[in-house]
Amino acid sequence: MQYDALNLKEKFALFDEHWKPKVIAEMNDYQFKLAKLKGDFVWHLHHETDETFIVIQGKLRIDFRDGYVHLNEGDMYVVPKNVEHKPYAEKEVKVLLIEPRATVNTGNANGEHTAENDVWV
Amino acid sequence: MQYDALNLKEKFALFDEHWKPKVIAEMNDYQFKLAKLKGDFVWHLHHETDETFIVIQGKLRIDFRDGYVHLNEGDMYVVPKNVEHKPYAEKEVKVLLIEPRATVNTGNANGEHTAENDVWV
Repeated sequence: MQYDALNLKEKFALFDEHWKPKVIAEMNDYQFKLAKLKGDFVWHLHHETDETFIVIQGKLRIDFRDGYVHLNEGDMYVVPKNVEHKPYAEKEVKVLLIEPRATVNTGNANGEHTAENDVWV
Repeated sequence: MQYDALNLKEKFALFDEHWKPKVIAEMNDYQFKLAKLKGDFVWHLHHETDETFIVIQGKLRIDFRDGYVHLNEGDMYVVPKNVEHKPYAEKEVKVLLIEPRATVNTGNANGEHTAENDVWV
């Protein structure tokens, strides 16, 4: 029997919205989510968990209250829990997010950017 | 203050050994590990956890007792816990592994392929 791998680029082709993470796989109680980001997000933090960003295509900046990190294609960064951050992308960037299943995209900052959780693609 | 992202390709350039995963980052109690694989590994399973493979460069086959999966660049696969598997690469493949901190590369099959854990690069 041939099992199917998940191809990240094929999965990215299945949606267009920005700031709406899509689940593609689970590992124990963690989820792998794809997201297309463009423009400015809201400042927020996650009280319960670290959050991993891997840039698959494009460029991402994550602002912190005391600085920033630039991520290019093939770069990753783990934002520690309880650290306020704000992703920003001048042009659309495609990212792979890894975090526990119940993690909400806006963390402690519920609002217009808060996306529905557990939406698979 | 400018924080530094981790670049996967730069990290891969820092070691040559096959089947010796190197930790590059942690997220909660999980680790991100880079590994270069070539040839045949041992059949094994992990009683405690799923295990995620993401192919960064090259091609990987993972054999199961009832089949196999082919992973090309940009593909990922989550091997469920308790499922026997055997990675195989005809040519060197570079993979990103994601799994809990204490996970041993050979799972239940201790032997010559068992690598030291928690080796960072």
